[in-house]
Amino acid sequence: MKSVTYIKCADQVVTMKGASHLPKKGNEMSEIGVIENGSIILENDKISFVGSDQEAAQYLESLNGAATTIEASGKIVTPGLIDPHTHLVFAGSREKELEMRLQGAKYIDILKQGGGILSSTRSTREATMEQLVEQASRRLDRFLQYGVTTVEAKSGYGLTVEDELKQLRAAKVLNSIHAIDLVSTFMGAHAIPAEYKDNPDAYVNLVIEEMIPVVAREGLAEFCDVFCEEGVFTVEQSEKILEAGKRYGLLPKIHADEIVRIGGAELAAKVGAVSAEHLLQASDEGIQALAESGTIAVLLPGTAFFLMEKPARARAMIDAGVAIAISTDCNPGSSPTQSMPFVMNAACLMMKMTPAEVLASATINAAHAIGLADRIGSIEVGKTADLVLFQASNYQTLQYNFAVNLVDTVIKNGKVVVQGGSLLGNFAASR
Amino acid sequence: MKSVTYIKCADQVVTMKGASHLPKKGNEMSEIGVIENGSIILENDKISFVGSDQEAAQYLESLNGAATTIEASGKIVTPGLIDPHTHLVFAGSREKELEMRLQGAKYIDILKQGGGILSSTRSTREATMEQLVEQASRRLDRFLQYGVTTVEAKSGYGLTVEDELKQLRAAKVLNSIHAIDLVSTFMGAHAIPAEYKDNPDAYVNLVIEEMIPVVAREGLAEFCDVFCEEGVFTVEQSEKILEAGKRYGLLPKIHADEIVRIGGAELAAKVGAVSAEHLLQASDEGIQALAESGTIAVLLPGTAFFLMEKPARARAMIDAGVAIAISTDCNPGSSPTQSMPFVMNAACLMMKMTPAEVLASATINAAHAIGLADRIGSIEVGKTADLVLFQASNYQTLQYNFAVNLVDTVIKNGKVVVQGGSLLGNFAASR
Ligand SMILES: [Zn+2]
Ligand SMILES: [Zn+2]
Repeated sequence: MKSVTYIKCADQVVTMKGASHLPKKGNEMSEIGVIENGSIILENDKISFVGSDQEAAQYLESLNGAATTIEASGKIVTPGLIDPHTHLVFAGSREKELEMRLQGAKYIDILKQGGGILSSTRSTREATMEQLVEQASRRLDRFLQYGVTTVEAKSGYGLTVEDELKQLRAAKVLNSIHAIDLVSTFMGAHAIPAEYKDNPDAYVNLVIEEMIPVVAREGLAEFCDVFCEEGVFTVEQSEKILEAGKRYGLLPKIHADEIVRIGGAELAAKVGAVSAEHLLQASDEGIQALAESGTIAVLLPGTAFFLMEKPARARAMIDAGVAIAISTDCNPGSSPTQSMPFVMNAACLMMKMTPAEVLASATINAAHAIGLADRIGSIEVGKTADLVLFQASNYQTLQYNFAVNLVDTVIKNGKVVVQGGSLLGNFAASR
Repeated sequence: MKSVTYIKCADQVVTMKGASHLPKKGNEMSEIGVIENGSIILENDKISFVGSDQEAAQYLESLNGAATTIEASGKIVTPGLIDPHTHLVFAGSREKELEMRLQGAKYIDILKQGGGILSSTRSTREATMEQLVEQASRRLDRFLQYGVTTVEAKSGYGLTVEDELKQLRAAKVLNSIHAIDLVSTFMGAHAIPAEYKDNPDAYVNLVIEEMIPVVAREGLAEFCDVFCEEGVFTVEQSEKILEAGKRYGLLPKIHADEIVRIGGAELAAKVGAVSAEHLLQASDEGIQALAESGTIAVLLPGTAFFLMEKPARARAMIDAGVAIAISTDCNPGSSPTQSMPFVMNAACLMMKMTPAEVLASATINAAHAIGLADRIGSIEVGKTADLVLFQASNYQTLQYNFAVNLVDTVIKNGKVVVQGGSLLGNFAASR
């Protein structure tokens, strides 16, 4: 039997219809398709009506059956938030590094004391796939409470063939057991593991010759990502890895120009990357190149906040015509958070993006960054019924009443999964 | 009948016992009395035991009666958070000003267009006391969900005798109907109202001769605060007002050195203020004066985040021996948030306070800032049973897993008022 849900008379429905993912000018991104006193009708897992409440009532009559009504007065409705860049699947936590950082320790000092990414690699290698699933599922629960309905998840804490596969298999399990949809990215080139310290090219070969083929064969990832950074993977090594991924059908993404400007943005444009990540140090030329190649800039202002750094130059990018998506960068080292609403606040306040631009970056543009804009990211007839109801009367309030979780209701695939801010049901594998 | 609650075996009980509210050196504040695998017993609204779980079991046996057990394994327990500086009671919201600020508008431009504090004054004057209670009670609900059990609330949006009294009476009603305890501060000297624009001294006289006497007579406030700032109240006017308050038994607080350094910190020391607020521009001499007078610095890093400004120099203050408390500064203009956990994150990341210092600033030091350290702010036998259980295994995690609400359970006066992150019961006047 068909299930019909009637979301009745929200103060605003922010559809994102018309929100350009590739604005030629900054303010085009502001046209986010707001319907005042709007209603939405869902049939099963799809959106079948969006418009005024009067028309909604007529449409509902034509359906001639029972509908579940969700009163949305005093609330706004947006597309489900999309996090296009996380390192979701890992074991262990690194809260003790925070005090070292506060006392001025540099990342390299922490690494020398056995901390940093290699500490997460150790814990992740020691964990079973089931343990990885269990820990990540609790993070997904929190993402859901903060309004996120789709998450990209990268491997890259395994750094051996088997451990990378273990992480990607965990993501596959999570995708099947949790309400949130996962999109997987293979990122064997996240770090050079300790055992290849003196021979990084041999590790690059392992990534290209062993990891990529088996990941592709098992259908474990849709994207291939690489950490192109001084002291990690060079521009040349990154290009080789991303081109190898392309040959196996893995679309390129790239961690670019985060710490040192070595031309990551330019490389992203050159290989036709779907997205370029971080971009704190991107040059004017790099930004121009991204605009021309249509590569989406995935910016991570929460990470800049946690690392006490200056964020990326979002306004320069918008002015140059680059489409921006934003993300938590959820990971145990540089951004241990699951709050997309806070990342939206940080995008607004730290990068001076307008409330409309921020919302586009967390929905339709984020959908483009993971190749799903035909199915999610906006409230349009035929799209998947992934929606969030926030306790707010207008979309500006999401950035104004900052650092609190205004999520009231989350609907995923047409089903209510969060109500009154609380999770319904048992999504986690073991709780 | 006596009600007994047994909080069993938390990963850490962070007692704050020994956390000096006036450290001579920064690291004394770090001694925050952590008990690993600790238990707490509450009898009615008081703490009657704190210690190891083994001793707790013995103590419980000696009580010889039924106890409600709260399993705290996998969690930490801290004192209820205390917010020592809010402008809680007001009407209206000002989310549209955010876009003006993002486009570079200065506060003075916003004021000229009818925005700013005078816009909140207009809305607050138009509201009835009942409307003020209703709007503020929803804010208190959110404070409670974020682990706050005591809130200081200032008047200062009325700016007439009757409207100031209306705000303070609303706070009194809120204190009686809501689980959260309120402490009231009279702040008629929050702004110079439009009708006194050309004659500020006449308004100062109104504050001194009419407002302070009636506020004191009706027992509506314990503190008197003034916005000592260029273009608002001069050092001389501020001193007159605070001395008048003292004659009526209202203890002085002072908004000092927020925008321009005009000697507010020095004035705070001179009048023996309990606390000095903001202090973004405080001079070395001002900081030294605060240390010598034992005045507590109430710092507001969430406000600095929202206003995109540099925060106060917390480390210099700690080094000088100033005790620091932190606060949301909850208000409709410069800090529309109710999240003390985020303010704690901002104190850590923006002001480089350690996780231990941050927690002391949000509990025992905040209690001192509102004159209640004999009753709340630490977990000690005989103190009021105001407690928070966080989903964390150690106190560092509160700053590490940032921008998410880790509050699991809140206990106020010995009663569970938040469980699994959700409010129990109906605290608000009308919901
Ligand atoms: Zn990343
Ligand atoms: Zn204030």
